[in-house]
Amino acid sequence: MPTSALPKNFGVILFPGFQLLDVCGPLDALNVLSNSHTLNLSIIAATLEPVGTKHLVQVQQGSKFDQRIVPTHTFNDAPKDLEVLIIPGGLGNRNDENMKPVVNYLASLGLTTAPQQHLRGDIKWILTVCTGSEILARTGALDGKKATTNKRAFNQVKEKHPKVNWVAKARWVVDGEFWTSSGISAGIDLIFAWMSEVFGEETAQYVADRSEYERNTDPTNDRYAERWGAV
Amino acid sequence: MPTSALPKNFGVILFPGFQLLDVCGPLDALNVLSNSHTLNLSIIAATLEPVGTKHLVQVQQGSKFDQRIVPTHTFNDAPKDLEVLIIPGGLGNRNDENMKPVVNYLASLGLTTAPQQHLRGDIKWILTVCTGSEILARTGALDGKKATTNKRAFNQVKEKHPKVNWVAKARWVVDGEFWTSSGISAGIDLIFAWMSEVFGEETAQYVADRSEYERNTDPTNDRYAERWGAV
Repeated sequence: MPTSALPKNFGVILFPGFQLLDVCGPLDALNVLSNSHTLNLSIIAATLEPVGTKHLVQVQQGSKFDQRIVPTHTFNDAPKDLEVLIIPGGLGNRNDENMKPVVNYLASLGLTTAPQQHLRGDIKWILTVCTGSEILARTGALDGKKATTNKRAFNQVKEKHPKVNWVAKARWVVDGEFWTSSGISAGIDLIFAWMSEVFGEETAQYVADRSEYERNTDPTNDRYAERWGAV
Repeated sequence: MPTSALPKNFGVILFPGFQLLDVCGPLDALNVLSNSHTLNLSIIAATLEPVGTKHLVQVQQGSKFDQRIVPTHTFNDAPKDLEVLIIPGGLGNRNDENMKPVVNYLASLGLTTAPQQHLRGDIKWILTVCTGSEILARTGALDGKKATTNKRAFNQVKEKHPKVNWVAKARWVVDGEFWTSSGISAGIDLIFAWMSEVFGEETAQYVADRSEYERNTDPTNDRYAERWGAV
C-alpha cells in the first residue's frame, strides 16, 4: 500500500444543474475515508452562492426539486495545491453559457500536458463522473486518450469530441491521470477503484463495507452501453 | 400502476453531521423521477443556515472535508402537506443536544398513530436511511414495529430501543408506512423499492437505468449484518 505520498487536497467542481449523485457518491466515500485519513475538500464554483441541481427539464415538468450546495471557493481563488479534482456531469451541461466558467477554469489548469508540468498546481488525478468527461473534453485534455461517459449521452458526446477514444462498454476507464466513469452511480465504483489504487485495496474495501456498498470492481462490467445503445 | 394518488410533496431532514449519501442517494433518484413526474422538495432543518456533513470523528482526524446543503424550511415552518418524509442518519446523531430539534419535530408529527390520524399533515410514508431509524425510534413511533438500521451501529441501537422489532439481516424493512433501510448506500435500494411500490416497477427500473444503478431488489439480501456482527 503506497503510504508515502497519499493525496490530501481534493477539489470538486459545481455548476448549476449538476447531477447530485455524481458529486455526492464519490464525496461520501471520501467522507468516510476522512475519518481515518486527513483530507481537505474545496468545493469550487463560479461564485460563492449556493449551487443548485435544478435544471430546465425538471422545471418544464413543473417540479420544484432542488438541492443547493455551498461552494468554498470560486474558480478565481481555487487552491493551487489540489491533488485530486472531481468533475461531475448533469443536465446543466446542455447550456454552453452555463458551462463557460467551468471550461475556462479547466483550461487554465493546463491538463493537456503531463501532470508535473501542469500550469497551475499539483493535480495528479482528474476524476470525472457521467458527462463530466464531456466538459473536460472541451479543453482538449482528453484528445488521444481513452475515456468514457454517461451511456445515454454517449453517442452525442462521441460525435462532438471525435479526437477522444471513447469506450462504450466500460463502468470506468483509466488513462494516465484521467479516471472517467460512466453515468451517475458509476462514480461510486470509480471512487472505490481509485481509492484501491491510491490508498490500497484494504482501505477501499473497508470504506465500502462501512458504506454498505456492493462495489462493481470490474471496469468492463457495464450493461448500460447496451441498455442505452452506446456504440 | 397506481396513478390515482401519486405523492408530490417530499421532505427531507438535515442535521449537523448527517451522512451525505443517506440524503443524496434517495434524493438523486427522485431528481431523475422529477423530470417525468411533478415533485416538490422541502429540505427541513433547525434553521435556514446551511447544514454540514462535518462531524467530530473527522475533525479529530484533522480533516476539513465538509459539504453544506441549504435548507428551504425550518422545523417551525415546515410544510403541513408533506406526503413523504426522508430521515437520514449520520455521526451527528451521537450528540443528543444536536438531535433535539429533529426529535422534537418528529414527535410533533404524531407518527405513533395511523397515517390518517397524524397530528400534522398528510404524511403517508416515512423513509429512514442508516441510523435515521434510531432518530425516529426516539419518538416511540417504531415501538412494536419491524425496522432495520446501520449494521455497524445495529447492536447499540437495538439495546437502546428494545421495544422495536429490529431485523438484523435486511437491506430494508417495510412495516406499514415505515420504510427503514440499512446503512448509507442501502438508502438507494430503499428508494427504488419504494418507487416501484408507489410509482410502479417500470418507472423505478427506468429511473435506475437512467442512473446506471444496479439495484438490490431483495430486501433480505444483506451481507453487512454478518460483516458488522449485527444480531
